Amino acid sequence: MSALCFPRGFRAATVGAAIKKAGRDDLALLYMPEGATAAALFTTNLFCAAPIHLSRQHLKDSHGHASALLLNAGCANAATGALGASNAMECVETIAQSLGVHALSVLVNSTGVIGTQLPMQRIVPVLAPLAIAALCAEENASLECYARAIMTTDTKPKMSAREVVVDGQTVRVSGVAKGAGMIHPNMATMIAVVMTDAQLTARELDMLLRDAADRSFHRISVDGDTSTNDSLFAFASGKASRVDPELLRRAIVEVCQDLARMIVTDGEGFTRSMSVRVQGASTKEEATTVAKTVAQSLLVRCAVTGGDPNWGRIVAAAGRAGVRFDPSELRLYVGGIEIFAHGQPLACDASAVLAAFNGAHVEMMLDLGATTGAVGDSNADEYLTSGLTEEYVRLNADYTT
Amino acid sequence: MSALCFPRGFRAATVGAAIKKAGRDDLALLYMPEGATAAALFTTNLFCAAPIHLSRQHLKDSHGHASALLLNAGCANAATGALGASNAMECVETIAQSLGVHALSVLVNSTGVIGTQLPMQRIVPVLAPLAIAALCAEENASLECYARAIMTTDTKPKMSAREVVVDGQTVRVSGVAKGAGMIHPNMATMIAVVMTDAQLTARELDMLLRDAADRSFHRISVDGDTSTNDSLFAFASGKASRVDPELLRRAIVEVCQDLARMIVTDGEGFTRSMSVRVQGASTKEEATTVAKTVAQSLLVRCAVTGGDPNWGRIVAAAGRAGVRFDPSELRLYVGGIEIFAHGQPLACDASAVLAAFNGAHVEMMLDLGATTGAVGDSNADEYLTSGLTEEYVRLNADYTT
Repeated sequence: MSALCFPRGFRAATVGAAIKKAGRDDLALLYMPEGATAAALFTTNLFCAAPIHLSRQHLKDSHGHASALLLNAGCANAATGALGASNAMECVETIAQSLGVHALSVLVNSTGVIGTQLPMQRIVPVLAPLAIAALCAEENASLECYARAIMTTDTKPKMSAREVVVDGQTVRVSGVAKGAGMIHPNMATMIAVVMTDAQLTARELDMLLRDAADRSFHRISVDGDTSTNDSLFAFASGKASRVDPELLRRAIVEVCQDLARMIVTDGEGFTRSMSVRVQGASTKEEATTVAKTVAQSLLVRCAVTGGDPNWGRIVAAAGRAGVRFDPSELRLYVGGIEIFAHGQPLACDASAVLAAFNGAHVEMMLDLGATTGAVGDSNADEYLTSGLTEEYVRLNADYTT
Repeated sequence: MSALCFPRGFRAATVGAAIKKAGRDDLALLYMPEGATAAALFTTNLFCAAPIHLSRQHLKDSHGHASALLLNAGCANAATGALGASNAMECVETIAQSLGVHALSVLVNSTGVIGTQLPMQRIVPVLAPLAIAALCAEENASLECYARAIMTTDTKPKMSAREVVVDGQTVRVSGVAKGAGMIHPNMATMIAVVMTDAQLTARELDMLLRDAADRSFHRISVDGDTSTNDSLFAFASGKASRVDPELLRRAIVEVCQDLARMIVTDGEGFTRSMSVRVQGASTKEEATTVAKTVAQSLLVRCAVTGGDPNWGRIVAAAGRAGVRFDPSELRLYVGGIEIFAHGQPLACDASAVLAAFNGAHVEMMLDLGATTGAVGDSNADEYLTSGLTEEYVRLNADYTT
């Protein structure tokens, strides 16, 4: 872990536009004075938001180059039709003009309520001042203001950074994120931004980003709902020297994993996290399917909340995952204690099992027994999620208009 | 609807064996003195319970013939290994001997806690008396005692019956069920029994049962967890005359739909039901996938509980279902009011929309717009479920051993 600052070549500014409510910064502009290679992963939801359509087009037309990213909280600009699209475009063009860059090099996304239009009368007047603030901003600033400006129902800003030092030269990877799960009423949702001063082509950055997402954001679940605005942006300013690709890869993965963990542990109604590791599957895909099914089971998640050693639910969820395996070969471990094997419960210390279900984190491991000998990543996978709580239901139900 | 009685050719008896707790009947024997054609659908869970393995084998070896069905509540006899299998077999053989029928003609299933063995010391002594009671039982008796004996956390017995009258001859279809969702801690779960005195071959009965299940039990969801013991049995005693196949088919479908509805509205923590109809899909399968995804969305289900007109969540859930459709063609109706079309919200009466989200039942309809003209069952499907409540989470979390 290193200081929570921007890498070289990145400046940021934030401003309040009272998009949903006054009294906070809810517009955040990231500015790369000398440009950056850019990559992004966007929601697969068919109702993806207007700014995502625009950013995807700009990334494509610019061949993976960007000078700025404009984010706002408080309104998702999703399910907003032609007006939503022209509002997103107006924001981008105003920022481009103020920064003196091509509109194609400006990306944009929004997070907040679905189905309402951006309050352009409050946003447009502050865009030029925001751009000027970004032009004048210091490099190496703290990530905190930026991370705070994109929060919706998050209770804390989410930031992470790593440094890789090679031959006395430092390469930095920094990231910020906002909460996952389509959390609060109509909220739409996860945004993460990963920045590095490493030298990377757009293609290299894209591959690193996909790899890191597969090991982090694609392995967490809050409520199984893919939102209309989920996005993960990555930028490489190239201001540092080239670095060992494997060290850089690891730093990016670690930053993404930090942010993903922060998203889970700051999910609505969070009380306890749980991880589901599956190994000994016939294929990686089958390990993924079983891990995901157990991690999304409402009954397993309720049991975790209650600290209830209901291992039968874990086994039953694995058994309905749609993956063929020999149930008599499955072994279940919770908190490292083997609980079930050969198709039946094992005699084990009940108080130790109870303790394993009652810690801050419940660790489940299922070995499907389809392979023997060394167990690697090729037939294993892991998901991270949380117990399902009454508070989650209350927060998502007790909103009336 | 007709009197809630058994059809001709069916007798039943129940007895208390204190399997989980004393003070109630928890063993139920259905007896067909002259035998019956038999069909069944069983859970697809790999960890299917010992009695299901046995019943599946008996159905196969008997070529769809049965004389009796033994059910118990309080213990699922699932994840119980070799001892569980021999216990199920011992129950079946004792019943067969007492009734004077071949063991192959006796089916069995259990419902209750996963991972504990049947208390054979309490069950075995009451099996012969139970069989004698069934031998002596009246025909045309009420379904109620039988339906009560298989209850677990159900708050009411679930029964339905229909009569088809042709040329002055009456054919009866009767059914009982117990609750769905792997409801209470470790519970494992749905059992339904459909009985008719119609004359049907095993193959005809099997086809009718599959068709009815597709239109009822396979179209409901309480929490998405397929249990280790889910089963649907059907028996035809042949004591009545043959009847118009379409009328009989409809009666069986209606009985199954009645029972399925009762299961949803008696689910744990139930406050409000919701239905999701999808039409205008490219294929039936795509309609099913979208309807199921919306029906299982935690956020949609939370909004229904809160009576919150969060239509954005419905649209977003449809958009992440993995089905390709043109989002600008989707139309969303709730309680008959068109809320969303052409990719954006429509102007509509907010108080009427609020009322549609606050009734006893919330009816959602999504037209994917992939087809024009007459809309039939070929590209439509419907799911029935309930709002997700804090009470559901509480019941499934606050159980400690």
